[in-house]
Amino acid sequence: MNLSETSYKRGRTDLALEVSERFEQDNVEVKGVILKETYHKNKEIKVTTVTVENEQGAKVMGKPIGTYITIEAPKLSEEDESYHKPLSKEIAKYLKKLMGEKKSEHVLVVGLGNRDITPDALGPEVVDNLFVTRHLIREYGQEFKEHNKMENMSAIAPGVMGQTGMEVSEILRGIIRETKPELVIVIDALAARSMERLNTTIQITDTGISPGSGVGNNRKALNEEGLGVKVIAIGCPTVVDASTIVYDTMENFMSDKGFSEDEVNNFIKEVGDMTIKNMFVTPKNIDEAIKKTSYTISEALNSCFCESLTE
Amino acid sequence: MNLSETSYKRGRTDLALEVSERFEQDNVEVKGVILKETYHKNKEIKVTTVTVENEQGAKVMGKPIGTYITIEAPKLSEEDESYHKPLSKEIAKYLKKLMGEKKSEHVLVVGLGNRDITPDALGPEVVDNLFVTRHLIREYGQEFKEHNKMENMSAIAPGVMGQTGMEVSEILRGIIRETKPELVIVIDALAARSMERLNTTIQITDTGISPGSGVGNNRKALNEEGLGVKVIAIGCPTVVDASTIVYDTMENFMSDKGFSEDEVNNFIKEVGDMTIKNMFVTPKNIDEAIKKTSYTISEALNSCFCESLTE
Amino acid sequence: MNLSETSYKRGRTDLALEVSERFEQDNVEVKGVILKETYHKNKEIKVTTVTVENEQGAKVMGKPIGTYITIEAPKLSEEDESYHKPLSKEIAKYLKKLMGEKKSEHVLVVGLGNRDITPDALGPEVVDNLFVTRHLIREYGQEFKEHNKMENMSAIAPGVMGQTGMEVSEILRGIIRETKPELVIVIDALAARSMERLNTTIQITDTGISPGSGVGNNRKALNEEGLGVKVIAIGCPTVVDASTIVYDTMENFMSDKGFSEDEVNNFIKEVGDMTIKNMFVTPKNIDEAIKKTSYTISEALNSCFCESLTE
Amino acid sequence: MNLSETSYKRGRTDLALEVSERFEQDNVEVKGVILKETYHKNKEIKVTTVTVENEQGAKVMGKPIGTYITIEAPKLSEEDESYHKPLSKEIAKYLKKLMGEKKSEHVLVVGLGNRDITPDALGPEVVDNLFVTRHLIREYGQEFKEHNKMENMSAIAPGVMGQTGMEVSEILRGIIRETKPELVIVIDALAARSMERLNTTIQITDTGISPGSGVGNNRKALNEEGLGVKVIAIGCPTVVDASTIVYDTMENFMSDKGFSEDEVNNFIKEVGDMTIKNMFVTPKNIDEAIKKTSYTISEALNSCFCESLTE
Repeated sequence: MNLSETSYKRGRTDLALEVSERFEQDNVEVKGVILKETYHKNKEIKVTTVTVENEQGAKVMGKPIGTYITIEAPKLSEEDESYHKPLSKEIAKYLKKLMGEKKSEHVLVVGLGNRDITPDALGPEVVDNLFVTRHLIREYGQEFKEHNKMENMSAIAPGVMGQTGMEVSEILRGIIRETKPELVIVIDALAARSMERLNTTIQITDTGISPGSGVGNNRKALNEEGLGVKVIAIGCPTVVDASTIVYDTMENFMSDKGFSEDEVNNFIKEVGDMTIKNMFVTPKNIDEAIKKTSYTISEALNSCFCESLTE
Repeated sequence: MNLSETSYKRGRTDLALEVSERFEQDNVEVKGVILKETYHKNKEIKVTTVTVENEQGAKVMGKPIGTYITIEAPKLSEEDESYHKPLSKEIAKYLKKLMGEKKSEHVLVVGLGNRDITPDALGPEVVDNLFVTRHLIREYGQEFKEHNKMENMSAIAPGVMGQTGMEVSEILRGIIRETKPELVIVIDALAARSMERLNTTIQITDTGISPGSGVGNNRKALNEEGLGVKVIAIGCPTVVDASTIVYDTMENFMSDKGFSEDEVNNFIKEVGDMTIKNMFVTPKNIDEAIKKTSYTISEALNSCFCESLTE
Repeated sequence: MNLSETSYKRGRTDLALEVSERFEQDNVEVKGVILKETYHKNKEIKVTTVTVENEQGAKVMGKPIGTYITIEAPKLSEEDESYHKPLSKEIAKYLKKLMGEKKSEHVLVVGLGNRDITPDALGPEVVDNLFVTRHLIREYGQEFKEHNKMENMSAIAPGVMGQTGMEVSEILRGIIRETKPELVIVIDALAARSMERLNTTIQITDTGISPGSGVGNNRKALNEEGLGVKVIAIGCPTVVDASTIVYDTMENFMSDKGFSEDEVNNFIKEVGDMTIKNMFVTPKNIDEAIKKTSYTISEALNSCFCESLTE
Repeated sequence: MNLSETSYKRGRTDLALEVSERFEQDNVEVKGVILKETYHKNKEIKVTTVTVENEQGAKVMGKPIGTYITIEAPKLSEEDESYHKPLSKEIAKYLKKLMGEKKSEHVLVVGLGNRDITPDALGPEVVDNLFVTRHLIREYGQEFKEHNKMENMSAIAPGVMGQTGMEVSEILRGIIRETKPELVIVIDALAARSMERLNTTIQITDTGISPGSGVGNNRKALNEEGLGVKVIAIGCPTVVDASTIVYDTMENFMSDKGFSEDEVNNFIKEVGDMTIKNMFVTPKNIDEAIKKTSYTISEALNSCFCESLTE
């Protein structure tokens, strides 16, 4: 995730689901946004699809037009193998749904994040577990490809700007121009608003990743406009901004005690000093959580793009 | 650090300095506790020595009797090499002071913490950079030892209980019985109360590490009573408990707005749910900070126990 | 493995199977050594049990009295998940056989080797994937233990002497005295004589690990005599000594061309200079091989000592 | 290095110095190749410059036209800090020489190799220690750049083809097109012919890296023709091909014993089976060696492109 991005907004979240929940709380109906929930009771998995239909919905949500599928799986980071397989399959199913019917002959998977900071290492660790095939198909040919029921998969963990001095979008645009994938899948650790969501939720979206406001596009965005090819993003929240935790606690307390909105806002402005902006909150078992989640996501990708692996 | 230790106390801190500051704020004079400050202006380093003289002081401070030297060096985690050398020397100087005149012929350095969680990897990374000598001296003899002006140094990064299923104190007692060091130096990442202290402060103490209350001794303590040999602890705060940040913000706000102490305490009890207790706060550049700090501490130890390395 | 151990012997191997093959080649019958082979054709797994019955057998074999089970699985390091599960089960089966009927209430697993050298990282990586339980059972009690069908498992990756300055046997004796396991399982990367065996073979033995001659015991040995508890060793060859490769090629060539044994020996003495003694040979895909093998072994251990994990 | 490149040639070496030594041994004068040696006796450093002047020299050497500077420093991987600083300076000096007078305003440093295989991790570890500046200069502007006496430095460790499915040249061409550096510096672990050179030699060359024959150019080459910008390569040999060791021993022995060249060649053909081709030889202390060498090279680069760091 973009850890260095200072967030002036309160309650920053990368999860469309959390944004829509805020409106639910306030009992506001949002035009241009559709919610659909599905339960997989036996599998203890809940799937919510948030569809942002038009510019109006995008504006209210602060998220681009597109589909956001959220898989909530409370045991995602637990030590229970019989649980990870169905979850992998679920991720693969929704990934295929977003990819659409036209098969991509060449997929580039991008593991975003800094592998030296545990909660940000999700993307690089997914890439470490992938079974990349593009070079094998180039060497052994079409027959090999068909025999193994595989698509061309390439992958990279480009590092973060503090390590490379380059925007990830610059690196990816270059690689895409040279290797011409038809689909890019970016894997990223996300920031949630609520601590309960950490390492229990997977979000899959066909909007890619838009830094900053989330609406509008720029050269930094990892989406179709920025990269020139379709982009699907798979993310799992692993941190909460430190300021979010303070803001949320304060907000609840102050509105509870009858402070006015202005008073709340003033107080929050005071708190928002530089130090807390450079801090994040993460669980004490984040090492185990990242290990489990990255394995689950990479299995989903492997099964999606090399069917013979899971037969 | 003991990340798994749930802290019910508000404002947990491993820094004696921060405890004493609380009394200063409240303008309370603490009997049995002596403070001394030294400035190294050119070196931009400030050294504070907190001496807990007796049981009375220990009780008030919540820290065992002993000496706590705190080196504050705002640039500790910065990219400035000319700065790390003097800081290493400063650490070595105070370490020697606490070791006393009697030379230890054999020192065991212990890197506490979980190397898979970035802010907790300080201890293991210090051990990775050490120049251990015990096996060399055993092989090449006394002359080799004297020629290189080295003491016997052994080292271990035992991992945390979640990885080993054993208390660190169990592992260390065993190793100490077998290899008979005269001094144990434990290196650990600490929890501070204030975000400003993270990666800018080094604490050196001759009390070792006492989990839990900090006063009284038990089989888990990494100190002379628990391990049977003198223990010096070197630590650097790398995290703040997530609950501490919320508590401190709330406390300031509530006392500011005229809430009573009871109201404050009630509110804090409500906030103290399980989720936030399992969370910590750490800076977004923690990878760089750990790299720099561990290098600085290991250089201090290397120079202390193998003089020929730095000549 | 003990990488630092300079091997003056030609054709060093840690595999009992390879030693016995040498005698087969020479058509020598070895008294006190029994061989038994089993094929699992469908699973493409071959199991050979070498039993060294008495001192005579031990002397000829250069290996202590005991049972050496070798599982040959050519696809061990391949990317084929359906293959690793049966192999894990096979390892677990033979492990249980060597453990005997008396259940061990507390097992300590030791991951030997240097995690910073890829082919030597097998042991530490197995430990990284273990589900240790001793601390959980201590906290949650007997009922928890029985509900989850688990034994007490603790684990440590102690590092190598160059990192710690201590013999592994010193570290383990200490830990064993404090925590009193009834069984120690050591995991280690091994040296084979033949390149074909690398990453395709697992050896399980109830003799533990005896550095040096392999016969006789000393304070460095990781076996029942050295550690005071039963020791089972699980190993996988990941390197060949560089000198072994040269010796074997030369020996074949020279005997082929009719050189006398003396000439061969003289030549080999000349080759045996210091440089080659400090070198090892390992495959170019060693990173993938270690990942797969360590996963397979840790799954075997997890299923052995926590049955509920695999139900 | 390109570990996957099967080398059918005997005695593969990436060091121009070793190629030229072969001719010296045979007392052959090579037209188009100039050798110059310099000793830095106090610093225990020897520098040899091999200049391949024309196509004739390139053909005989099997290396492209250009300058190859070899710094031999026997203590490169030793634990002696007073030694690494002068060596860093020496590397920086020759690097500047090859860069020429025209200052590069933007340098891209590329750490080649697989970070999961210890002897191949040199490039990625150099990149880990770099102080990249491009993004800082973009944010803080020209004044900041001049104040700190820095050039734009960006960096990437792209991984190897087995991890990414892409040729490194594809990845780099893309990144170069997008970010437009004027100079690319590639860092790579090399294969030497002689074990004595491992981790004691640094080669700096303005020819970049040409996989395969070394002469002629193709889309895979990391040189000016392949990448479109000037390329300087810095390498350190960390492995010897396993076949090279066998070949060299055999060749010496056979010519010594009076075998004909045909007999030697026939034998070597027989030995050259697939297994040994997939193996490499590396020293048992390769972890320490990589740590020291990568640090030395990254310090050289940091001092070259950010002068204020070393003032």
